Amino acid sequence: MRIGITIGDASGVGPEVLLRAHEEGGEFERPWLAFGDVGVLEYAKEALGLNTPLHAVSPGDSLSTEALNIVDAGLLKSSDVRPGEIHREAGRAAVKYVEAAVEAALEGTIDAITTLPMNKESSRLSCPGFQGHTELIAGMCGVDDFTMMLVTPGLIATHVSTHVSLREAIERVKSKRILEVIRLTHDAVKRIRPRVRIAVAGLNPHAGEHGAFGTEDIDEILPAVECARAEGIDADGPLPPDTLFMQAAGGAYDAIVCMYHDQGHIPLKMRSFHEGVNVTVGLPIIRTSVDHGTAFDIAYQGTASTGNLVRAFELAAAMAEEK
Amino acid sequence: MRIGITIGDASGVGPEVLLRAHEEGGEFERPWLAFGDVGVLEYAKEALGLNTPLHAVSPGDSLSTEALNIVDAGLLKSSDVRPGEIHREAGRAAVKYVEAAVEAALEGTIDAITTLPMNKESSRLSCPGFQGHTELIAGMCGVDDFTMMLVTPGLIATHVSTHVSLREAIERVKSKRILEVIRLTHDAVKRIRPRVRIAVAGLNPHAGEHGAFGTEDIDEILPAVECARAEGIDADGPLPPDTLFMQAAGGAYDAIVCMYHDQGHIPLKMRSFHEGVNVTVGLPIIRTSVDHGTAFDIAYQGTASTGNLVRAFELAAAMAEEK
Repeated sequence: MRIGITIGDASGVGPEVLLRAHEEGGEFERPWLAFGDVGVLEYAKEALGLNTPLHAVSPGDSLSTEALNIVDAGLLKSSDVRPGEIHREAGRAAVKYVEAAVEAALEGTIDAITTLPMNKESSRLSCPGFQGHTELIAGMCGVDDFTMMLVTPGLIATHVSTHVSLREAIERVKSKRILEVIRLTHDAVKRIRPRVRIAVAGLNPHAGEHGAFGTEDIDEILPAVECARAEGIDADGPLPPDTLFMQAAGGAYDAIVCMYHDQGHIPLKMRSFHEGVNVTVGLPIIRTSVDHGTAFDIAYQGTASTGNLVRAFELAAAMAEEK
Repeated sequence: MRIGITIGDASGVGPEVLLRAHEEGGEFERPWLAFGDVGVLEYAKEALGLNTPLHAVSPGDSLSTEALNIVDAGLLKSSDVRPGEIHREAGRAAVKYVEAAVEAALEGTIDAITTLPMNKESSRLSCPGFQGHTELIAGMCGVDDFTMMLVTPGLIATHVSTHVSLREAIERVKSKRILEVIRLTHDAVKRIRPRVRIAVAGLNPHAGEHGAFGTEDIDEILPAVECARAEGIDADGPLPPDTLFMQAAGGAYDAIVCMYHDQGHIPLKMRSFHEGVNVTVGLPIIRTSVDHGTAFDIAYQGTASTGNLVRAFELAAAMAEEK
């Protein structure tokens, strides 16, 4: 099993989180394979007082179990690292790490990728069209239909849309897209859970109360649920959003299809803030991601939590094994 | 201290919840004063096998501490009760109970009211313009500006809008209304909490990320927060909705101003499903309400939880004492 971990933006917490998680060791005995810059990890070692041995490799090389293996991009030296700063070169390098890891995954040299956070603002300085981490990966995979799945210990949520305005999110609540997300959810969740009972959330309060507060629940969501059921998917909805998360947390459902970003993110983050892992569903490769950002304010201080990376890594490994 | 409790729609769980909570007694020693029909409570006693003594009174009479005092509307007899059915006469009577209680509160004969659930569909059969329980009360009080506050043990949320479509909710995210809700929240929360630090939620994911996903956060919410601060209110925002509830639950804020129904209801109900109490804020009278509906499917079976009424009653009493 070979999981590639991209170190993320060098100005943020990614590199140190990787090093510290590797030092802590813990449950995973697999060799580690990072995609990044040796210079950045050297900087992090120095800042944190660590002696982690680094082993530069190509993605297909045999890996050391004693060292942290790294596919070196050769872009940033230790002296280039500027903790907490928006930095054109760091943003550019972060894109390159992801590109290298995705290429290796598409070639089958690695089994999955786990990504540490990039900074959108930094990466835009060299890639003006940069939309986001996930869009970059989906674009390389030639995929238009994907969704973001947030996995926490008790609850799993996918989203019809994520990083768009709430106004735009409502426009995207369309049968075709909802059905697609239900199918993607079904396919992804069956890899990690024994059963897949899907709850589809309504859009409006009380799922519209029979059309009294909005009609999208009846006009768009219900037909998608009916189509999914006709395909043999165990889907239920549209359900009143303010009670369904509690029902799902109680064990009534295995995954929730959410109509907009905050519908899923508010309850899941409140329940399990440090434990959420993102999975990009619908790609030809396996990609998990930590559910935190670059946290520039605490970069290289040794305080950022490593638990999220560990969970993202473990989930990638579990999905790769199942595949 | 005299709190009037309306028994709600006779086809639902209101009457039995009142009787069973009274039987359980528990913490409150105050005499109880119901607004309803003696016939309905007699039916509930029979159905549940209870011997609760009933004492018919006028709102200003001295109250019995041994019996359940009731202001009898004289509308429904025991034989009129139809558990679990949409029923024109039950819907009409439920409106009359509320009217009697609100009149008594406006006259100052009682100190606060706590309401058990009505059924909108039933009440519309006799009152075609019936919008809802809260609108009825606000109308009698001559008030246009009010908000619904959901109070749970750890979190308090108010709402810029509640029972409207999400599309319409976005239209209501306007500075003037938000400022009004911040002020109402401040005035209400200071009666029940030692401090009032208000978090104002953003509308869009990540509060719009500097305008990248929607502009309401910058154009409407931020100016309202600035005005509130200029008035001396401790308000902070617009804050990213998917992390602020966790921060508030951790003690960083005393109340959250939410931009739409589910933004507040999803996290608060997930955390404290049976413990939520609604307060209508902005009225000249104190009104609390249970956070559940008529639950026609379990009416008169003795299984509906009484805890929610107890909490609604206690909160009404606490607010009345403070006033």
